[in-house]
Amino acid sequence: MTTFGESHGPAIGCVVDGCPPGLSIAPEDFRHDLDRRATGKTRHTSARRETDDIEILSGVYEGRTTGTPIALLIRNTDARSKDYGSIAEQFRPGHADYSYWQKYGLRDPRGGGRSSARETTMRVAAGVIAKKWLAERFGVVVRGFMSQIGEVVPNGYDLSVVESNPFFWPDAAQVAELETYMDALRKSGDSVGARVDVIADNVPPGWGEPIYGKLDGELAAALMSINAVKGVEIGDGFASVASKGSAHRDEISLQGFASNHAGGILGGISTGQQLRCSTAFKPTSSLRLPGRSVDIHGNEVEVITTGRHDPCVGIRATPICEAMVALVLIDQALRHRAQCGDVGTITPRIPATPEFDGDV
Amino acid sequence: MTTFGESHGPAIGCVVDGCPPGLSIAPEDFRHDLDRRATGKTRHTSARRETDDIEILSGVYEGRTTGTPIALLIRNTDARSKDYGSIAEQFRPGHADYSYWQKYGLRDPRGGGRSSARETTMRVAAGVIAKKWLAERFGVVVRGFMSQIGEVVPNGYDLSVVESNPFFWPDAAQVAELETYMDALRKSGDSVGARVDVIADNVPPGWGEPIYGKLDGELAAALMSINAVKGVEIGDGFASVASKGSAHRDEISLQGFASNHAGGILGGISTGQQLRCSTAFKPTSSLRLPGRSVDIHGNEVEVITTGRHDPCVGIRATPICEAMVALVLIDQALRHRAQCGDVGTITPRIPATPEFDGDV
Amino acid sequence: MTTFGESHGPAIGCVVDGCPPGLSIAPEDFRHDLDRRATGKTRHTSARRETDDIEILSGVYEGRTTGTPIALLIRNTDARSKDYGSIAEQFRPGHADYSYWQKYGLRDPRGGGRSSARETTMRVAAGVIAKKWLAERFGVVVRGFMSQIGEVVPNGYDLSVVESNPFFWPDAAQVAELETYMDALRKSGDSVGARVDVIADNVPPGWGEPIYGKLDGELAAALMSINAVKGVEIGDGFASVASKGSAHRDEISLQGFASNHAGGILGGISTGQQLRCSTAFKPTSSLRLPGRSVDIHGNEVEVITTGRHDPCVGIRATPICEAMVALVLIDQALRHRAQCGDVGTITPRIPATPEFDGDV
Amino acid sequence: MTTFGESHGPAIGCVVDGCPPGLSIAPEDFRHDLDRRATGKTRHTSARRETDDIEILSGVYEGRTTGTPIALLIRNTDARSKDYGSIAEQFRPGHADYSYWQKYGLRDPRGGGRSSARETTMRVAAGVIAKKWLAERFGVVVRGFMSQIGEVVPNGYDLSVVESNPFFWPDAAQVAELETYMDALRKSGDSVGARVDVIADNVPPGWGEPIYGKLDGELAAALMSINAVKGVEIGDGFASVASKGSAHRDEISLQGFASNHAGGILGGISTGQQLRCSTAFKPTSSLRLPGRSVDIHGNEVEVITTGRHDPCVGIRATPICEAMVALVLIDQALRHRAQCGDVGTITPRIPATPEFDGDV
Repeated sequence: MTTFGESHGPAIGCVVDGCPPGLSIAPEDFRHDLDRRATGKTRHTSARRETDDIEILSGVYEGRTTGTPIALLIRNTDARSKDYGSIAEQFRPGHADYSYWQKYGLRDPRGGGRSSARETTMRVAAGVIAKKWLAERFGVVVRGFMSQIGEVVPNGYDLSVVESNPFFWPDAAQVAELETYMDALRKSGDSVGARVDVIADNVPPGWGEPIYGKLDGELAAALMSINAVKGVEIGDGFASVASKGSAHRDEISLQGFASNHAGGILGGISTGQQLRCSTAFKPTSSLRLPGRSVDIHGNEVEVITTGRHDPCVGIRATPICEAMVALVLIDQALRHRAQCGDVGTITPRIPATPEFDGDV
Repeated sequence: MTTFGESHGPAIGCVVDGCPPGLSIAPEDFRHDLDRRATGKTRHTSARRETDDIEILSGVYEGRTTGTPIALLIRNTDARSKDYGSIAEQFRPGHADYSYWQKYGLRDPRGGGRSSARETTMRVAAGVIAKKWLAERFGVVVRGFMSQIGEVVPNGYDLSVVESNPFFWPDAAQVAELETYMDALRKSGDSVGARVDVIADNVPPGWGEPIYGKLDGELAAALMSINAVKGVEIGDGFASVASKGSAHRDEISLQGFASNHAGGILGGISTGQQLRCSTAFKPTSSLRLPGRSVDIHGNEVEVITTGRHDPCVGIRATPICEAMVALVLIDQALRHRAQCGDVGTITPRIPATPEFDGDV
Repeated sequence: MTTFGESHGPAIGCVVDGCPPGLSIAPEDFRHDLDRRATGKTRHTSARRETDDIEILSGVYEGRTTGTPIALLIRNTDARSKDYGSIAEQFRPGHADYSYWQKYGLRDPRGGGRSSARETTMRVAAGVIAKKWLAERFGVVVRGFMSQIGEVVPNGYDLSVVESNPFFWPDAAQVAELETYMDALRKSGDSVGARVDVIADNVPPGWGEPIYGKLDGELAAALMSINAVKGVEIGDGFASVASKGSAHRDEISLQGFASNHAGGILGGISTGQQLRCSTAFKPTSSLRLPGRSVDIHGNEVEVITTGRHDPCVGIRATPICEAMVALVLIDQALRHRAQCGDVGTITPRIPATPEFDGDV
Repeated sequence: MTTFGESHGPAIGCVVDGCPPGLSIAPEDFRHDLDRRATGKTRHTSARRETDDIEILSGVYEGRTTGTPIALLIRNTDARSKDYGSIAEQFRPGHADYSYWQKYGLRDPRGGGRSSARETTMRVAAGVIAKKWLAERFGVVVRGFMSQIGEVVPNGYDLSVVESNPFFWPDAAQVAELETYMDALRKSGDSVGARVDVIADNVPPGWGEPIYGKLDGELAAALMSINAVKGVEIGDGFASVASKGSAHRDEISLQGFASNHAGGILGGISTGQQLRCSTAFKPTSSLRLPGRSVDIHGNEVEVITTGRHDPCVGIRATPICEAMVALVLIDQALRHRAQCGDVGTITPRIPATPEFDGDV
C-alpha cells in the first residue's frame, strides 16, 4: 500500500497492490471504518467535516478485485486553508513544520500538508480491504479500543461496548467521566495523549519471517508510522522489563497456553494465540494556547493554532491502528503462503488461549 | 544489511551492501563492540565463550571499502550442541520453537537455530561499519545504556560511567547493588527483563521520509526485530499518553529547543535534537526452573533448559541496540542525500538543546 | 513510480515517490510528450481520441515539487467499451487475455483492462518529471527514434527530423515511402513490428550498481516491461555476437573513446559515453483479420477485433521508451548520489565520443 | 539471492533467502552445474582452475532446507593476482575498470575485482537450488544451449547432444568445425561473442505480475545483469520487428497453440507454453592483442592482458543463463502463490504446444 496527498491539496488517495483476486469490494464497504475515523461527528473531535466519499479508480471489476492495483481516491472538499494562512511562515512547536523545512527547503504549509493526519484516512481505507480478506479467508478479526486517555485507564474490559461510545472505551461505566474530562480539556485549550490497543483473533500460527520481516517488527514499523505515535508494545511490552522469566514465558499444555504475555508472537512468528499490541499517542500539538517558536525568517514568535483540532488525536486513532495491523497481517499471510504454501497443518496445534481480559 | 547463520551451524555472517566507498575498515575495528556484546566475560552473562573473530570476505581492498558488498564471517567454534539434545523435540515455553515448527514443519533445534541471539553478533558487526561512517562523515555518536533491570532504575544518569561496569549502568553508585541483585537472580534460576536506551548526538535535521520510511518507524522495526524485544519508544514514549500538549510540544527559540519530549523526531524526520529511543527486553525464557510444555509428538512435558544462558539478556543488548540505531541512521542519511542532496543548509537552524538528563 | 488503472475504468494514474524537491512542474509540462504518445492524431495510429488531461493531485505546491509523492490522474473519457463486448469471453490470440484468465480466474475484458497499452500513458507522464530533472540537474537529454518498421530501416540518421514526421523516423526522405507502406498495411488489416532506439547524452560516468542494480539490467527490465516488447539491446546488442573482441572493445585515448559498441555502459555502470539502447516491438495482435482461438467455455472460436487499434504499436512507443530510460536514469542518479555523494570528480575523465551515427 | 566477493579476495558467496522449507540440498548437488560453468576443463576456456567447492554455511539442517537464509561459500584458491599487477593502474578497454574508477574513486584491480565473471559462480550455485525446487514441485526443466558463436549458427537443433560437447552446441555434426574455429581464434589472440538460448518446460500458466514484475521484465533484468551481456530476447525477440501480426500472434485451439512466437509469455504472464529466451554475449575484452587506453595518471598506454581468459565467454555462460532463468521462475512461482494461492485450476487450459525446433 502506498498513499499520496496533502491535507489541503486536491485529493488524497492510495494504491493497494497485490490484493488477491476475487474479493468482493464496493464503495460502501469503506463507510463504516471511515466514519469511525472521521472528524466532526462528536464534540470530542475536530469540527472539520470530512465526508470522505471513496471512489474506486481501478482494480475492481463487476464488484470483485481483479488482482491488479486498486486505487482509491477521496477529494478534499472542506479544506479551509485560510485557517492556516497566519502560520504559514511559523514552525508550530511539536509539529513537523521545522523538520520538513530543514529536509526539503520548502513545504506545503496548508494544514500541515503531507504531515497532516488526513493521510491516515487512506490507511483506514486500505485496511478495510485487508480486514475483509483476512476475515473471509482466515476468520481473522481485528479489533481496537482505547486503553488510556491522559491518566484515565479502564476499570474493566468489555469489548462489546467499545463501538457504543465516542471514545472506543471498553468500560461503559466510565464514559460519563470521560465526557466531563474531555469537555474540561477542550475548554482549557489543552490536549492529552492516548493509548490504543489492538487485538487480532484467529491469526494462524506461522505468520512472520524469522529475522528481518518479523511480524512484531513489521507491526512496530506500521504503528510507529502513524502520526503522533511515540511507542509500540507487543504483548506485555514495557511491563516485561520488571517481570521474571518464570512468570513471563507462557507455559503450554494440550489445552492451550497458560497466559499470553508474548502477545501471540514468538521469534517474530505468530503462535496462534491472540495477537496483542499497544500504541502510544502523544497529545495534539496544535493548541490555541500560545507557544514559543521561531519563523522561517529567524524571528522568535508566539504561535497560536486556531484551526479545528482534536484535543486527543488518539480517539480517532483506533480504526487507524486496526488498519495498520490488518495491512501487516495480510502482507505476512501472503508472504507465508509464498514460502510455506506446501507446509501442511502441523501437529500438535495448541489452542489459542487465553482471551484478552485486560490483565498484563 | 542481511545476516545468515544458525547458533550451532558452521558459521554466522552478514552482507552489508551500499556502503560508501573509501571508508577505512579493518578486522580490529570490530573487536570493541563484539567484546561488549560477548558472553563469557563476567559471571552475569552466559558462560558460552564466543571468540567472535571476524573475517572480512569482500568489499574491502587495501583497508578501505570499495563500495561493493562487504561480507563478514564468524565461525562457530564453541557450539556444544549436545547441551540442547534433550530438548530437540520439546517446545520450550517463551521460545520460538513452536512458532518455527508451525511455520516450516521442521527446524534446527541446536541452540535455537536461527532464532538464537547469536544472530545479533552480526548486527553488532554491521553496526560497527555504520557507526564509523556516521562518526567520520557527520560526527554522529551513538551511545546506549541500561535504564532499567527488573524493577531497578537508575538514580542518576552519568553516561561517562556506562562503559566501566558490566551492566552498562549510568549510575556507578548502584553497581554493587546490581551485582548482588544479579547474583541472587542467577542463584534462583530465574531471569528478568531490561530496558535499554540509545541516544544519538549530532544527527542533522532532515533525516527520515515523511510517511513510509519515517525515521521513527524504521527505528521501531529495527529495534523490535532484536530477539526478546517487546516494546520500543521514541522520546517520551508511553509517558506521552498522560502528558498535556502544552507541556509535551517542545517549544523553540533561537537558543534551541526548550525540551526534548519528541526524542529528536517530528513527522518522521529528525529535528537536529538528540535522538532518543528506548527498548524493552523480556526476561530470558531459557531457565533451569522447570516449565510446562508439550513436545512434537503431542505429549505434555516438563522442560528444563540446562544450557548456558543469560539471566538478563538485556545486559548484552546495549551494543545491539546501538548497532540497529546506527544502521537505520546510515540508511536514512544515504536516502536523504539521494533525494535532497541539492538542498543546501536551510536557515534558521535551531541548536540541538537540551542534552539528555534522564528526565522525561 | 507505480501506476494504476484499466483501459476502460474510471481513470488511470501514477504515483511518483522520491522526487527531489524544488523542481518546477505544471500540468502543461506533460502536454508535449503525451501528445507524442497520443492516438488519433494521424491516420497511422488508433482512432481512439485520448485527450489525456493530467491532473496533479499531490506533491506539488505553488508549482514546485515538495519531495512528497506526486500523484497524477487522467480520467478515461472516450472509452467505448461496447467495442469490446463481443470478445469479452474470447481469448484474443497474441493477447494477455488467456494468461490473465489463468492467473486470476477472472479479468476485466474491457479494452484489455490492465494489460492495455493505455497504462503506458502514465509512464510517459512520470517520464516527463524524470526528463525535466535530469536536464536541469545534469544536462541529460533523452531522445528516441524509430530504427525499423517491419522490414524498412533508415537509410540515414538525422535526428533533427525525427519530430517532424509521424513515424519518429530519422530519414526525412523515406517518410513518403513509409506513408505508403502504412496505408497498404492498414488497408490489409494486418500489422507489423517496430524497433525503437533511445539515446541519452550527457549521462555522467558512475551511474549504476555493480551487480544487481546494473544500469543495463534496470534498463532491460524497464523497457521489457512495456507492452508488446520482445527484446532489448544495449549498444551493439545482438550484433556483438558476431563481432571480434579486438573490434568490439572501445579503445580509449585522452581525446575520447574510439567507438561506442558498449552503448555507454561497462560493468553495469555508465562510462560517460552516449547511452544507447534499442527495443523490439512485436506487431499488434488486435486485427480485423480473423484468428483462431477458444473462449472461456472451451469452445473453439474465430476472433475478429473490431476496435480501434494501431497497425504498428511501435510508432507511438518512442516517447514511452524515452520515459522508461529517463525513469531508470533518475533512479540511478539518486542511488549513485546516496552511496557515492562524497566521491568528487575523478580524473582522468574521458570525453564522451563518438556521437551516434547509426553505424553499429 | 544476493552475492558477494571479488575475483581475488578471500572468498565468494551468496545468500539465498525465502527458499521453501523441506527441500533436500547437499554440497554434491552443486557439483554438476559448477563443473559445467568451470574454467580449465577444455582448451576452449580460461586455464584458471576453479575447484569451486561449495560450503553450505546455513539454512540447511540434516540435509533439508529450514526456510532460513541459505549461505553458500567458495574460497578463492587459485587466485594468481600477480597476473594482473601490471595493469592495476590501467583502464582495460571494454572492461569495467574505468566505470568503477569513476563511480567509487578507488577499485580492487585484482582480476577485475567485483566485476569479474567469477561472481557468476554463485549465481549458478543459487540456481541449483531454484532448479531443484522447480523440478520437484512443478516438473519445470530449465535447459540452455548455444545458438550462435561468432557467425556460426546451428544447422539443426537436437537438444540431446548439448551436454556432450564443450560448446553446449545443439548440432553434433558441427562440433569439429567449432573446435577448429576456436583453435584458430585462440591462436589469433582474439575473441568472439556468443548467443545462448534457454528454454523452460512445464512452466504453468499464470506466473508473472501484470506490469512491474512482468515475467519477461524480470528475465530481462536477470539475464542483462550477467557480465558481458548486451541483449535479451523473449520468444522471437528482434525477429518480431519484421513479422506481421497475422503470423506472429500464436493462434489457439483446444489441441494447443499453433506456434510460439511469444516465447511462452503474454502480458508479462506465462501462458503455459515453453518459455524461450535468448541472450547476447559480447566478445571477451581481455586480449593479448594490444589495445589503446589511458591509465589512472592520465597517460596514454597500450594494454596487453596476459591473464588466463576465455576466447568466448559465452561458452561457459549456458549454466549461468539457466540459473538466472530458474531464479526468476522460483521467485515468480512464490509470488504467484502468495497472491493467487486460492485461484484453483482454471479451465480451459490449453496444451503447451509446440516444442522448440529452432525455427523462429
